[in-house]
Amino acid sequence: MDICWKLLATTFFLSVLSVAYSIPLRTDRNDVLKKEDTTYLGGNLILREKEEMVNKVLMDLKHKEISSARTSGRFAPMEHFFRAKPLIDQSKVFDILRKMPKGAALHLHDYAIVSVEWLVKNATYLPYCYICFTPTNRVRFHFAKTQPAPQDSDCFEWILLDTFRKQLSDVTEFDNSLIRNLTLFTENPEVAYPSQKAVWERFEDIFSVSSGLISYAPVFKAYFYEGLKELYEDNVQYLELRAMLPEVYELDGTTHHEEWLMAVYQDVLQQFVAGHPGFLGGKIIFTGHRFSDVYIIKETVNMAMNLSRKFPDTFAGFDLVGNEDMGGTLLEYKDALLIPSEIGFNLTYFFHAGETDWQGTPIDENMMDALLFNTSRLGHAYALARHPVVKEMSRKMDVPVEVCPISNQVLMLVSNLQNHPAATLMAEGYPMVISSDDPSIFGAKGISYDFYEAFMGLGGMRADLKLLKQLCMNSIRYSALSQEEKEKAMDSWQEKWDEFLSEVLNIL
Amino acid sequence: MDICWKLLATTFFLSVLSVAYSIPLRTDRNDVLKKEDTTYLGGNLILREKEEMVNKVLMDLKHKEISSARTSGRFAPMEHFFRAKPLIDQSKVFDILRKMPKGAALHLHDYAIVSVEWLVKNATYLPYCYICFTPTNRVRFHFAKTQPAPQDSDCFEWILLDTFRKQLSDVTEFDNSLIRNLTLFTENPEVAYPSQKAVWERFEDIFSVSSGLISYAPVFKAYFYEGLKELYEDNVQYLELRAMLPEVYELDGTTHHEEWLMAVYQDVLQQFVAGHPGFLGGKIIFTGHRFSDVYIIKETVNMAMNLSRKFPDTFAGFDLVGNEDMGGTLLEYKDALLIPSEIGFNLTYFFHAGETDWQGTPIDENMMDALLFNTSRLGHAYALARHPVVKEMSRKMDVPVEVCPISNQVLMLVSNLQNHPAATLMAEGYPMVISSDDPSIFGAKGISYDFYEAFMGLGGMRADLKLLKQLCMNSIRYSALSQEEKEKAMDSWQEKWDEFLSEVLNIL
Repeated sequence: MDICWKLLATTFFLSVLSVAYSIPLRTDRNDVLKKEDTTYLGGNLILREKEEMVNKVLMDLKHKEISSARTSGRFAPMEHFFRAKPLIDQSKVFDILRKMPKGAALHLHDYAIVSVEWLVKNATYLPYCYICFTPTNRVRFHFAKTQPAPQDSDCFEWILLDTFRKQLSDVTEFDNSLIRNLTLFTENPEVAYPSQKAVWERFEDIFSVSSGLISYAPVFKAYFYEGLKELYEDNVQYLELRAMLPEVYELDGTTHHEEWLMAVYQDVLQQFVAGHPGFLGGKIIFTGHRFSDVYIIKETVNMAMNLSRKFPDTFAGFDLVGNEDMGGTLLEYKDALLIPSEIGFNLTYFFHAGETDWQGTPIDENMMDALLFNTSRLGHAYALARHPVVKEMSRKMDVPVEVCPISNQVLMLVSNLQNHPAATLMAEGYPMVISSDDPSIFGAKGISYDFYEAFMGLGGMRADLKLLKQLCMNSIRYSALSQEEKEKAMDSWQEKWDEFLSEVLNIL
Repeated sequence: MDICWKLLATTFFLSVLSVAYSIPLRTDRNDVLKKEDTTYLGGNLILREKEEMVNKVLMDLKHKEISSARTSGRFAPMEHFFRAKPLIDQSKVFDILRKMPKGAALHLHDYAIVSVEWLVKNATYLPYCYICFTPTNRVRFHFAKTQPAPQDSDCFEWILLDTFRKQLSDVTEFDNSLIRNLTLFTENPEVAYPSQKAVWERFEDIFSVSSGLISYAPVFKAYFYEGLKELYEDNVQYLELRAMLPEVYELDGTTHHEEWLMAVYQDVLQQFVAGHPGFLGGKIIFTGHRFSDVYIIKETVNMAMNLSRKFPDTFAGFDLVGNEDMGGTLLEYKDALLIPSEIGFNLTYFFHAGETDWQGTPIDENMMDALLFNTSRLGHAYALARHPVVKEMSRKMDVPVEVCPISNQVLMLVSNLQNHPAATLMAEGYPMVISSDDPSIFGAKGISYDFYEAFMGLGGMRADLKLLKQLCMNSIRYSALSQEEKEKAMDSWQEKWDEFLSEVLNIL
């Protein structure tokens, strides 16, 4: 692009007609805009007539919504999700995004997929549910036939919840307090969570609250089924779930382990698929914890290979989870992570990497190491835009990033989502998918809220149906499905996509 | 980069020795890190021995400071500058940055370069200074022999400040209130400024407060001299000042206009250079306002050409200022901005462009249009990273961005400066300079605070003396100095740079 307006204008002036340069100028300008549009994620897609019509409806709504936000000063992606959610709930663009078949949800965690109201209203009302209060006024749950011993936990005394509720004058208020125990939601998040460390501590404590409920075998099964239902209702067709496969217990104290959990996931998936036409099932990404010693991760990797052999259709691969900034680097786990290739076993990796604001730290090298370990996707890779060489390497390897905007905001990597670095990746057409990480803990549901933030906040005024279509198709393309399964999934998605187009056009 | 750890490991396993792959892996990993380092801004510079020694001192301090920030949870670039400033003031890295000869300050505005204490303690104590309070409890100033009429302003009644102060029991507290009138500083900026619009309104009101003082001819001259002094003391060698050249008045009501102001700037610059060895002077970038009608901008452009002819050594070029998001686009001013090229006049442009969080709006196209108008630098270009085609075009044209991190934070484009998009540009080695925009209004001084934020926040752990050296050299390279002047400036800067290296090594 060596030609400039001024230069052009000068040339034209010198070559006689000063009125003439408006034409070549417009062309020049439009060339740049057009090139930006085609470079954009989805920019090479050509919309069919029906899609163009839906796009017009969608973009009219989008532009109206952004214009009105600029006048009112209230634009959801600029605000913390806890304040933005009511705005999003009123949005007509959000209505469309909820209806849209979104393909696969590729970045979600086992114990954070079901709205917490469900847990409180169902799981805590089951018989034999004990509750216990911690010194910091948080709660723990456990199911048992007799009162568990207090030394089993970090809390005072186990009380049968049924008995406890009977003494209360306001059970609704109490149940609401349980809901608050299970999410990060608060009216003033900036005050409640003064730092990333503080919000992560609370985030991890929530897992201690919910695991007492979800790790109870009957709840475990029902929870996963309910999770699939919420995703299905949000028009998601397929799920890849990061699961730690922690111990699950029965009322009599017997416990179940990884293989049992995998079998349950497999059964529930089959059962759900059978009852929900168009839903394509899911796979499990087994996860270790990045605070574990290397020898533990070695055991976990060995378990991963074992599960991969035993559940070839349901097992997708392996990952490490936990607050990346505070945990071990992938490099530190090298000896564990190289085991599969040493023995010639193909264990697929789906590493979280680059979920950090801190540049140039050893943690910030995780994205590079994830790629060197041949990861098939990058979880978050929030820091990727700041690493041009790693980004290029990743692109050549066709490794997409899993972008979870609300998670990144609530866990305090960024406040205004217009500044989310994936906006830059999107503009460059970098492969990505959108997911919601831990929607229940953030007070979201499914993945539509994250699609909204991505479409309105990261995408800006020009991002249109092409972006959305590309994101949906990417989710299937970059899934762990086999080539054959992908083709089937794409056909099924395309059918739903066509229905969605009709729905939008009929309704409006 | 097609080779991955796992692939490599597999290959080596298959080819016998499983212990052997640590060597090629390390090489591979280091290749990526090395390539990232050389891609980084300044990454191709080779430090001399003395520079390497200073770099070690600097990086030891930097790493200590960041480590301690990660432990304490308080890291200046993550916090609002109003809270971060006391942290920066204590920093040993900041000490070094203040001492460092920074070359040219290329993005500063006429009425915001001198610490407001100076204005209050000097200008408001001059004879004939009147004050007036507005309905919103803000102040206005005017110098006059007799009481100005109330209808001249948006305030109640003009009171002689000397008389007013005599009635006060606590003059210090009153003077502090004047200081607060002249800066955006407040203890809770998030509460005081709920939106970008709100902070911009207050920001522009500050100019209404200060202009009553600075536009008084005796203050005008002294103010500019004092501004040069503050920059000189901050180890800046040269200045390019955006100036609106507004009406300046005398006590008797006579007024001065653009040519008079240019002449004063020129005189003060000459006078200052004469008295301050090593200071290289400055140039003026005349600015219109992006809320003006096109016909006004046409007049302003004509005036710019006139000033360029009359002050060839002091006049650098033309720009448009004001809240970009709310103002006219460069495209709307096309007919005005093309005048010079139409008549074959070489008017250099230094456009503010892309000072916005809003993607895909007509405003967001200003960066592209600035380049099409052949701008020689881009002011802020905060949105540039999200425009890969425009970014590439800009790079090919060798147009740098003027990055003002504190301004972008205080005017609410970004909160955590680790998320500033120039961090991405820096990592790509994109040409840039660092400046401070309106330091007096943000409670900063000179450009060292912005260098600190850029070095620590945007740069991260690995950015070192090479980045700083490149930023300093860029400031001369991308200035409006002639080729000959640049060579002289570079020699002079190099001399100061060597002194600085010695100073750091002797002191520590």
